[in-house]
Parts: sequence; structure tokens; C-alpha cells
Amino acid sequence: MSDGRTESGGEPVTAAVLVIGDEILSGRTKDRNIGYIAEYLTNIGVDLREARVVPDVVEEIADAVNALRARYTYVFTTGGIGPTHDDITADGVAHAFGLPVIHHPRAVEILTAYLGDRLNEARLRMARMPEGAELIENAVSKAPGWRIGNVHVMAGIPSVMQAMLDAIAPTLKTGQKMLSVTVEGRGLKEGDVGGPLTEIQTAHPGVMIGSYPRFDGKRFTTALVVRSRDAALMAAAQADVEALVARLQAEIED
Amino acid sequence: MSDGRTESGGEPVTAAVLVIGDEILSGRTKDRNIGYIAEYLTNIGVDLREARVVPDVVEEIADAVNALRARYTYVFTTGGIGPTHDDITADGVAHAFGLPVIHHPRAVEILTAYLGDRLNEARLRMARMPEGAELIENAVSKAPGWRIGNVHVMAGIPSVMQAMLDAIAPTLKTGQKMLSVTVEGRGLKEGDVGGPLTEIQTAHPGVMIGSYPRFDGKRFTTALVVRSRDAALMAAAQADVEALVARLQAEIED
Repeated sequence: MSDGRTESGGEPVTAAVLVIGDEILSGRTKDRNIGYIAEYLTNIGVDLREARVVPDVVEEIADAVNALRARYTYVFTTGGIGPTHDDITADGVAHAFGLPVIHHPRAVEILTAYLGDRLNEARLRMARMPEGAELIENAVSKAPGWRIGNVHVMAGIPSVMQAMLDAIAPTLKTGQKMLSVTVEGRGLKEGDVGGPLTEIQTAHPGVMIGSYPRFDGKRFTTALVVRSRDAALMAAAQADVEALVARLQAEIED
Repeated sequence: MSDGRTESGGEPVTAAVLVIGDEILSGRTKDRNIGYIAEYLTNIGVDLREARVVPDVVEEIADAVNALRARYTYVFTTGGIGPTHDDITADGVAHAFGLPVIHHPRAVEILTAYLGDRLNEARLRMARMPEGAELIENAVSKAPGWRIGNVHVMAGIPSVMQAMLDAIAPTLKTGQKMLSVTVEGRGLKEGDVGGPLTEIQTAHPGVMIGSYPRFDGKRFTTALVVRSRDAALMAAAQADVEALVARLQAEIED
């Protein structure tokens, strides 16, 4: 429902997530990062507009990075920055930017200080990144993430990714936060709500109204979520949705 | 590591997943379908090569469908086929194919038989699909999914999606199944394994070797996953990986 979006706080700030890893596409590992980043960005006023999962293939990573960084304010990648041969995110992102891959001097220092004589050739791979990249602090396990242009490269392990996102957040410009309110349509099926809900959506172009059914084994509930960047517009639509829910619930009880 | 892939059973059969829904990108709903489909396809010999999440916007859906259907054997979409105004997957896919959206006669019959006089205008939306689409059975809640060309359109609710995938599976051509074996590198950190693992990967071009570290709060384990379509090639690489793990574990115990 992009037509309904109101940007009362200036241009919206947009983002894409790029998850990198064969293990996600084989189903061996279940991604938890897209959902976490989605919720996090929503909370700070950045609109996540797209997410992709690609395999550990340099050209695939580069193509996706180029498609996404041209289109959105920010790109956030997860995965593929560890010490083994299948960690090739640095190569993919460098290829996308047409930059050489170097060992970042400060990253080497950090790894040396943390790992001492455990810093072998494999672990030194974690300092590889495109020339010109800036480091992103890793409060969990030291090996840093990095940023080049509008692309932020983070670890795939959720706890490490989350720490990196906390380090990145203060550096981001953010738009006016998307507000939302949920009206719980208890006892209502989505198909009962659909018709009149369309009329409410049409009458309120400054909001987006979503409809999310669930069934607890005994009865249906349809959650109606009203979203807007404008509190007054949201409240007006919310009132209409609440009236609809009350009316439909009364019909059921008759 | 696409370079290492061996297709000893003929052309690989490939796929992409397209998840459709603002609720996933806002973080309100956490996607569980990508992981399920990934594991399912791997088990039946179809390679999932890419996944995308796009918002409820007709042009975004159409662009993604066209990019993915041209590139992979199959596309599987989830979400956006319910009865409310924000369910616009039919419009997006029809736009991608340049086809008109019709009410599929058999789908209308199924909904009529199931819903009786509850079949209102909103629920009738669930029979909307591009002209020429074929139905996919929904054993859970009747409203069918559908297929047009190589694109399979499924519900977003996991239980319904899973039933539809079961209905689709027998109609798919499948490649030789990807085999895999996991060698648990207990006590080993990924950075200890990385160097010699690269040598093993280089020596075994017919297999893909992935490395997945975890930490249980007491000690590290790095799972080494050897994948191939050729059992003999996989066994040869597995032997080398097991020897490596045994050697590194012995070094730790010294």
C-alpha cells in the first residue's frame, strides 16, 4: 500500500537486508536476522523495503549489493565474514564497488590484541574488506563489521549481528517514525472484515491498514493494524476500525 | 561455492522463494516459510538459490516475479492471497505475466461449497487469479493456491502453505538429491579449522564444505558440513575432514 504512505517528517529513510549464506538456502540454518532487523529499523524510523537471501557466490553477492544500494538509503548484510573459505562477503561487496580487498590495518590490530598468537592466516581473513571501509564495533567477539558507502556488513551469528546493529544505529539518519496501533477483532474472520475494511482504507489515504487472521483452536481473531506517520490520521482511521469491529461483533452475538 | 557443484544427475533443478507482505518487512510477523521451504526443497532434490521479501505493492511483486521466474526452474510465493484489500498477490503476478485477473470458475465453486452464504464479496477475492492459472489444493482451509507458468502461489499462514507445498511436490521435476554429512568439531573454533579446511575444499572440487560455529556457554563446536550430489566424492572429503578434526582435537588435548 505504498500509495497511502505519508511522509510528514521529510523524505522516508529506506533500507534493504541482504542475508548471505548457503546454509540459509539449504534450510540447515533458519534465518532469524531479517525479523530482528525489520523490527529494529521500524522502531528507529527506517523503512525496511526489501530483503534478499543469496548463496556464497561472489557474483550473486555483488549483483544483489548493487541492486539494493542503488535503490535504498541503506543496505545491511549479514553473514559470510568469518575465518573460513566460504566467508566471501568481503570479496562480493568489494566486487560490487570495484574496489580492491585489503587487510584493514586497524582490524588487524584489534584481532592481534584480542587473539595474540591464535591469530593465524584463517583468522586474519576477518580483517579483509574493501579499501576505504570503516569499522563497525563488535562488542561480543571483537572481529569487526564494516561499512562501505551505504552498505553495512555484519556478522551472521544473531548475538554478534545485534551488537553491531546497536553500534550502527546512532550513525543512521532516521525518518519520522511509523506509528501503529492494533485493533483486535476477536471472534471475527478476515473474510467478514474484508469488505468494510476496504471502504475504511479508501477513506483514509494517509494510513495503511493491514489484516492478520489467527485461530487459537477455538475461535478466530483478526488483528487489524493501522499504521501512519501522522498521529491524527492514524487516530481517525483507528476510530473507524474500532467502530467496524464493534458492529461486526454485535452481529455475531445476535 | 557454485564452482564446486557437481550435477551427476543431469541439470540441477533450481528455485526461488518470494515472500510477499508488509507485515514481514515491518517485523510484526516473523517469517517462518523461507526456512521451511528451503529444507523441504533440499530434501526433494530442488536447489533453493535465492529468497526475497517484498512489500504489498503490485509493481514490486511483479518485478520480483519476473526477475526470479526467468532465472530459476521454479518460483514459490507465500502471502497475499487472502480476502482483504492488502492481498494483492494475484494482481502482482498477473501484471508480471501481462494477463488479466479473473475469478477462476472452479475456485468460485470450491469457495461456494465450503462457505455457503458466508461467501461475500471479500471472500470471493480469494478466487481471483491470472487467466489460465491452475489450482493448488488447500487441504487446510479450502481456498486454493494456484500456479501460472513456473510460479506457484501459496498462502502465507505456515500450516496452509505447508499443505499446499505437499500438493505441489509431486508435480515438480527434481534433480539428484544433494547429500550432506556433518562432522562435529567439538572443542574446535572456526578460526582453528579455517586454514586446513581451505586445503581440503581445494582438494575436493566436487563437494561444498561449510563451517558453522556455535558456543554453548562452555566450549566451542564448529560443525563442518560436507555436501555433494555424489556419494563417493562426499565420502572422500568426509574422511579428510574427520582426520583434520581428530588431529586438531588431539592438539588441544596435548
